[in-house]
Amino acid sequence: MDKYIFELKMKVRDYECDLQGIVNNANYQHYMEHTRHEYLHSVGISFAKLHQQGIDAVVARLTISFKTPLQSGDEFVSKLYLKHEGIKYVFYQDLYRLPDMKCVAKGVIDTVCLINGRLGECEELTQKMTFHE
Amino acid sequence: MDKYIFELKMKVRDYECDLQGIVNNANYQHYMEHTRHEYLHSVGISFAKLHQQGIDAVVARLTISFKTPLQSGDEFVSKLYLKHEGIKYVFYQDLYRLPDMKCVAKGVIDTVCLINGRLGECEELTQKMTFHE
Amino acid sequence: MDKYIFELKMKVRDYECDLQGIVNNANYQHYMEHTRHEYLHSVGISFAKLHQQGIDAVVARLTISFKTPLQSGDEFVSKLYLKHEGIKYVFYQDLYRLPDMKCVAKGVIDTVCLINGRLGECEELTQKMTFHE
Amino acid sequence: MDKYIFELKMKVRDYECDLQGIVNNANYQHYMEHTRHEYLHSVGISFAKLHQQGIDAVVARLTISFKTPLQSGDEFVSKLYLKHEGIKYVFYQDLYRLPDMKCVAKGVIDTVCLINGRLGECEELTQKMTFHE
Repeated sequence: MDKYIFELKMKVRDYECDLQGIVNNANYQHYMEHTRHEYLHSVGISFAKLHQQGIDAVVARLTISFKTPLQSGDEFVSKLYLKHEGIKYVFYQDLYRLPDMKCVAKGVIDTVCLINGRLGECEELTQKMTFHE
Repeated sequence: MDKYIFELKMKVRDYECDLQGIVNNANYQHYMEHTRHEYLHSVGISFAKLHQQGIDAVVARLTISFKTPLQSGDEFVSKLYLKHEGIKYVFYQDLYRLPDMKCVAKGVIDTVCLINGRLGECEELTQKMTFHE
Repeated sequence: MDKYIFELKMKVRDYECDLQGIVNNANYQHYMEHTRHEYLHSVGISFAKLHQQGIDAVVARLTISFKTPLQSGDEFVSKLYLKHEGIKYVFYQDLYRLPDMKCVAKGVIDTVCLINGRLGECEELTQKMTFHE
Repeated sequence: MDKYIFELKMKVRDYECDLQGIVNNANYQHYMEHTRHEYLHSVGISFAKLHQQGIDAVVARLTISFKTPLQSGDEFVSKLYLKHEGIKYVFYQDLYRLPDMKCVAKGVIDTVCLINGRLGECEELTQKMTFHE
């Protein structure tokens, strides 16, 4: 059974490639951020509106392993599942190249909420998101 | 009748927004570049492979008018048509917000080819692309 | 005599180069934006604080001519002067490669102010900036 | 005694901030990459020239802890030291806000070399870089 709860298909944009002819590493972080925000959107939460309400979900720590670089023209799927550990939401985010499903990158992203600048738990996020145990 | 010959639907990614809460201007240039490259792809040309063959399509000059800023969550469609003027390929590229089709930005992008570093005409591009008179 | 009233020395960062091995065009827009904001900073204005006060300086239209591409390792100087035309502040921004001062790009950037979302004139900007006639 | 062997002073550019009004996380990866490449430059190695010789230094894995977000106008210093572990060069890279030297982010970046596409050791890098034991 699939452990992932959300996925988003994307395609490399040429400006994301650097002088090595492969996607620059920082863009994998962008792909993962966009996937998290689209997951939030899919459960009815807007990252931008949270910010306007004084609630900022921020990344406290991340680890990304880079397996196979994406190149110009590549399509890929970005998948995630998440766990709730104390005050943290831990996103497990993996990218797979299409159509061969070769693993591109694996990330573990610890996020926390700042409510008016202070660490806290955002009830709306906790209620609407789905966690693995 | 529609003057555009290619269009691509896209969605704002939150990392593209800046501290004003709207898409940073440079990203419209990215959107337009990606649309041009996807148009090339649709007629069987790879921007990356052209580069490997020593043919670099480059922007010589661009003018962009910014009409309505895109925000977090916005979807939009990026459209283009082009003209062949002497050695130049001139792309007319317009972005429209969805679903209200409000004009976001209008661009005119003059591109030329460098063949092994020298200005020249790329026959493959001229043959495969479709021009307005 | 030099027409420019502000200049900023910068160096290409490798992640700004794309698969053609030269700085991606959108980054010239970034360089010019950063130069404008540093110019504002030099006359005592913070772009971010303006935004917090409900005053957003935005680009209405820009034209950039690309003359000589920057590459990995290049240093360059970004210069500007500006004119006040009606409600617009028009920035003339040119980039020159160091040390040979070859022209990299020339931009004309029309900016306007939105005050609480409406076009208007920001007195603080008009008073503190220096205009060519 | 200071463990760092290289440092680079930088300033936040407004386009690096996102809709939360703080530097977008992916830009810390950019700052760290640029610092590594400037360190290489300081010991006589060009990342771009290595690539042209068929030697690509790539990131295999990274961990970044985000401590204090940078904001518009902030200056900071990016520091690094490195270790040689088997075939890997492990960069320890920390960012500190100026002038209060508050820790902004801490990164551990594992890099390896691909020589004509195969994992290998680049003698030039090993000889010219300085490692902690």
